[in-house]
Order: sequence, then C-alpha cells, then structure tokens
Amino acid sequence: MKFSNRVINLNESPIRKLAPSSNKAISDGKKIYFLNIGQPDIQTPKSFFEAVKRQKIETLKYEPSQGNRKLIESIVSRFKEDDIIFDYKDIIVTNGASEALLFAISAITDPQDEILIPEPFYVNTVSFLKQFSINVVPILTVEENNYHLPEIETIEKLINTRTKAILITNPNNPTGTVYSEEELKMIVKLALKYDLYIISDEVYRPMSFDNKKATSLATISRKANDNLILIDSVSKKYSACGARIGAIISKNESLMSHIIKLAQARLSVSTLDQVGATELYKLDSKYYIKISKEYQSRRDVVIKELEKIDGITYSYPEGAFYILVTLPIENAEHFAKWMLESYEYDGETVFVAPAKDFYLKSNKGINQIRIAYVYNKNKLKRALLILKKGLETYLKNF
Amino acid sequence: MKFSNRVINLNESPIRKLAPSSNKAISDGKKIYFLNIGQPDIQTPKSFFEAVKRQKIETLKYEPSQGNRKLIESIVSRFKEDDIIFDYKDIIVTNGASEALLFAISAITDPQDEILIPEPFYVNTVSFLKQFSINVVPILTVEENNYHLPEIETIEKLINTRTKAILITNPNNPTGTVYSEEELKMIVKLALKYDLYIISDEVYRPMSFDNKKATSLATISRKANDNLILIDSVSKKYSACGARIGAIISKNESLMSHIIKLAQARLSVSTLDQVGATELYKLDSKYYIKISKEYQSRRDVVIKELEKIDGITYSYPEGAFYILVTLPIENAEHFAKWMLESYEYDGETVFVAPAKDFYLKSNKGINQIRIAYVYNKNKLKRALLILKKGLETYLKNF
Repeated sequence: MKFSNRVINLNESPIRKLAPSSNKAISDGKKIYFLNIGQPDIQTPKSFFEAVKRQKIETLKYEPSQGNRKLIESIVSRFKEDDIIFDYKDIIVTNGASEALLFAISAITDPQDEILIPEPFYVNTVSFLKQFSINVVPILTVEENNYHLPEIETIEKLINTRTKAILITNPNNPTGTVYSEEELKMIVKLALKYDLYIISDEVYRPMSFDNKKATSLATISRKANDNLILIDSVSKKYSACGARIGAIISKNESLMSHIIKLAQARLSVSTLDQVGATELYKLDSKYYIKISKEYQSRRDVVIKELEKIDGITYSYPEGAFYILVTLPIENAEHFAKWMLESYEYDGETVFVAPAKDFYLKSNKGINQIRIAYVYNKNKLKRALLILKKGLETYLKNF
Repeated sequence: MKFSNRVINLNESPIRKLAPSSNKAISDGKKIYFLNIGQPDIQTPKSFFEAVKRQKIETLKYEPSQGNRKLIESIVSRFKEDDIIFDYKDIIVTNGASEALLFAISAITDPQDEILIPEPFYVNTVSFLKQFSINVVPILTVEENNYHLPEIETIEKLINTRTKAILITNPNNPTGTVYSEEELKMIVKLALKYDLYIISDEVYRPMSFDNKKATSLATISRKANDNLILIDSVSKKYSACGARIGAIISKNESLMSHIIKLAQARLSVSTLDQVGATELYKLDSKYYIKISKEYQSRRDVVIKELEKIDGITYSYPEGAFYILVTLPIENAEHFAKWMLESYEYDGETVFVAPAKDFYLKSNKGINQIRIAYVYNKNKLKRALLILKKGLETYLKNF
C-alpha cells in the first residue's frame, strides 16, 4: 500500500520523538524533569472545572460551528480589556491554536505558495505547511541579536509573487523573543506593500517580562485589518493545554466567510471545553500579571543556573517560557538521547528538546537545545544542576 | 486579499446554510422541528458526565497524541465484544470522525488522486476531499434499489491508476442503507485486486434494524487488513456529538506510523472528553440494542406518516437515522427555505435538509430532502404532519 507524499515528507515531532528514550529512562527507574515540552505545571484556574461541573447538559449536542456564543463574547470582552477590539463576527473557535493555524494556511495558500517565518520556528507550524505543500521561507534570526528580526531589506529580499503571508509568533516559541513595536510596524509595512497576510500567533501574549508588554499586531495599524489573522488559545496562558480551545480571529469578512466553511465541515469544537474556557477568558488582568511574574522569576532562575555552566551561550528570553541554549558539543540530539538513556545524577535526569528541527536546513541548530521552564523554581534549579553535571560528563566521554 | 482555490471551491454546509431562514422563522416566533441535522435527542449516557465530574485534574495537560490509554483500551474491549479484533497500537483517538476522515485522506492521497464513494454521500466527506484537491468519483446508487451498491462490473469501470480508495459509510448517511455481507465482500475483492484502501466509516454500526446486523468491514477478510481504515465516533451511537471523540483504526502499521505524525502536529484531543468517552465504550450490548429499537420504532413512525403523503417516494432505511424522500416538486431547496420563511401550521414548521449537495452533479437530488428522525415518536408524527400540510400548500402555490 502506498502513502501520500504529504505524510512521507512529514517529520516526527522533535519534541515527542525521543519518547522511546524517555520510556527507557522511566523503566530504568529514573526520575525525569521534562524540560522538552511546553506543558505548564501551573494549575488550571478552578473556575474552568467548576463551570464544567455546574453544567446540567443532558444531551451533549454540537455547538455552532463558529463556537459557543458565550465563549466568543467572553473572548471579545477579554481582548477589549487589553484595548484589542474585535467583534463577535470576527471570531471562530477552533480545536486549539493548531486548528486555527491549519484553517489560516488552508484558506490563503495553494500548493507551492510561500510563507515567511522567523527561524528558529515552532515546529508544528512547519508540519502544517508541509501538509499543504507550502514552501517555508525562513527569516533567519540569531542568538547574538536575541533572535530579533533582521533589517527590513533582508526580509524584503525574500518576498516574491508566490509569497502569501508572514507568520509571526509573539512572544516567540522557541526563542522567548518579544518583538518590539518597531519590528511589528515593519511587518505591517511589508504586508501592506506586498498585499500579504500576517498570521500572528499570540498565544503567549500575556506572558512577557521586565515590564515590557507584548504588543498585539491587532493594535498596530487599522490599515492592516484585512491582512491580519490572529491566532489565540487557552493552552499556555491559562495552563489548559488539554482543553483544546483556540480561536482564529480576523476583521477580513471575506476571509472569515471562507474559514467558516472549513469549520462547518468539521462540525464543532468540544462542548464541555467551551463551557470551561468561557470562564477562563473572564479572568481579569491580575491573573495575567500573576503568571507573568511567575514565569519571569523562573526565567531568572534558569539564567542564573545557566551562568554556572561553562562553554554554553544563550539568548535572554523576554516572554513565553522557553530558552534556546547553544551547547559546546557536536550533536544536541545525541546529547538529549544520551541524557535519557545513559546518564543519571542521583537517579534523576532531564529531558531537553534538540533544536535542529526548529530550523529548515539540517545543518542549523544541531548544537542547540530548547528548555521549557515549566517547573517551579526549586525543581528548575535541580533540573539545571543535573543538566550541568550531565554536560560535564558528556564532554569527557565524547 | 486573495484566498486559496481550496476554500473558494468549498460549498457551505447544505445542512447549515439555511440557518438564516431558520433564524428568521425563530424571530417570527415559529416553533421549528429540526429534521435537518443528525443531532440525536436521546440523552448522553450519564456515566459520561459522572466520570467528568469525578476526575480530580488540577492542571489540564496534553494527553498523548495517540490518545488517552484508558480510552483506547476501552475501545479495544468494546470492539472485542462485537468480535472485531484490534490492538492498542491500531487505534489513534481523533477530534470526532471528522478528523479521522481528514487523517485518512491526508495520509493516502496526493492532489488529483481519486476516491470512489457511493452517491448520495455524506457531504462533509466531500468537503474534506476538496480541501485536499482529491477528485470524488461517485458510485451511483438509486432509490429503486434502496441505495444498495450496483454490480461489481459497474464499480470496476470507475477504477483507474489514480484511484486510491473506496469510501464506505455503513450504515449509510444520508440513505439509511445497511450494506449486505456480499456487498462488503465485493468492496474487499476490488480493494485487493486494485491495491486500494477501504475507508470504512462505521459510526452508525450499532444502529441497524429488523434484526439485520450491520457487519464491520474489519470482519470480512484478514487479507484486507492492510487495506482497511476504520472510522469510529461516539457522536451518534452514544448521543455525544458535542464530545469531539472519534478514532482512526487500522492494522496497517506503516500507515499508522504516518498518521501518528499528523496527530502529533495537532498535539492532542480534549482531555475531559476522553475521560467521559472512556465510560461510553464500557456500555454493553444492551445499550446498543436499546437505541437500535428506539430508532427502529421511529423509522416505523416516519414510514407510516410518509405513506399518508401523496406523490412522494422514498427508500426503506435499514439503519442509522436518516431517510431520503423524493418530492413531487422542482426544487427541494426552495421548498425547504419556503417551509422556514413562509409557512407555518399552528405556529410550527419543519426544517428539512435539501439533498442536492449529497450528489456531485448539480442536476441530481434536486427534488429530494433528507429527514433525520432525531425526535421522539410523538414529535415525529407532528413534524411529519406539518411536512404533509406544508407540501400540500406549496404544491398549490408553485
């Protein structure tokens, strides 16, 4: 039996493909610190579960394809508090940000079209683009520049007649970069000049540090209203990854009239998760401030512990909960696997994500890892000590 | 701004596109019987909600991309009770049958490939095929033959080098046909001869009437194990449409190794819905018998009431909860719209689905409607009386 070129060309998730090694570590009795996956440890706000338990549904019916009315109204209100103005009709609820990204790509690209993405990038986005036979055109960003965007001329050179969109994740996964207003204005300028869509993945928006706000692209310029497709999700900011609730948001009415057809074809999104998520979006700014502070203090712990490790370099995360670290080794995937399968420190080890799949070309990022700081500070300290000890041992052996 | 050809070619859901007319009817104060959508009124088994309320989750984490272990084990056991043997590794949990269909199509077809489907067909399947630029090749079935399959030679003529699969929905939506073992054997024979996949959508499997069991394609021939992709869902059989839980099931290990990559890219399926669905699959055969009886008695009511309407023809449903009715009119979409916007009988009307989008060519099915018998018997009687009265009035006016 044959398979589609689409799936043959697809890579296994780099974050999940070391699962066999991690299973080995577990069956060897080791305790693992999972720094490889962006799964927050913070509790999901109780109001989610309370709303789910309170509902008196007898028959679990399809919700409207656009989404539950109360949930959409709750999103509109929550955005309004942050001076981001969208109407009810601008929002379609999706199965997480994943489906929102799929819908965006599906609605605006035909095979062989091109999308520009700052590199390193969120790897699943590229999986989705491959599924639609879209060419990824990387905008290279580097550690020395804290992974901020290059000059406008550098990006402009990458644009051609097949370019359909620029995809921005802000704050960024995997780099932790928060783009400045100037950088966002540059993106808008290019989008308007070349008639490009901007797909703005803002699922980490409330999580920015050092009193530096992450600006939504929706607030940059009204002129770009038709260009902008905003992606949202409850997963990261509300620690609710298992509630598959996201949204695709745009003021481009024609675009939304096409996307609702994609939404209708898959019928609806989980009823109970929509009931719970409605309450999450009702949380006020204090909640955002609280989690930002928590992740900022974790970032500080991570940086302090990384400073103790010789020979490594890293950028300074401004938001989200990731940091990319460049190791003084040849092959970070080999190292990550070795840490799971062959190393332990007092019966414990750490699971880090090799970064090479965050880059398009296979010669980049091969000596980098991504760390997600999704543990409390004491656990993070311990995990980074183990990383330090592991790296020292690895360097002696290889 | 431009859109993809993919979404431009997509139709609005025929079941949902009359929503503006139905909204008008509602705002006019009419009571509507929704016979247009396959949304069962039967209560979701309480064990679903009890399990959800019982869980003590504090942080709603991603489930494994393959699905929650207990849910998969529950599916394996439930199938085993029906002598359908699958292993844990053969199953990936999906966002409803919709995502299972998307994964199947995505994994086995490249653009311009062809898939054979008995016509009339479930319209969203064709939406998914269009999204992937796949050509739908209809196997015409007719009312006179109760929408059963034609002779093998007729189907064989439709197969060429681009044909990748035959997609079968059994029991069928929208026809209610339950294919015989001989028909299924014919499909298997063709699949083996021409190296085709069989995508077998069996979400209505337990719902068959007159002591005639709907046979799973998984039990027809071991030789076809690598060819068969089975689609399942809790929506219809457990009245749980709003729990977006389905599954894609196959013994073809290479195929599943590709499909897990698609599942990994979208991360996971709703955690709470998986907790609830685990309990649904634990319900024993008595539950299946109970709902079959209920839908059978509704089918009987529908047939009895349809007999009272002059000039119509219809097939005899053997399973699921749909019936296609041929009306003595020119344009069933016009009629359906008129029933909502311009007709009422004692303040009430019915919403029926025009059937033309269940056919590929626009000249077919134009005088047909689909009725979903998703109300109790008294309500169904009332709804069909209104349909009769409405049709009589319509025939006098047009």
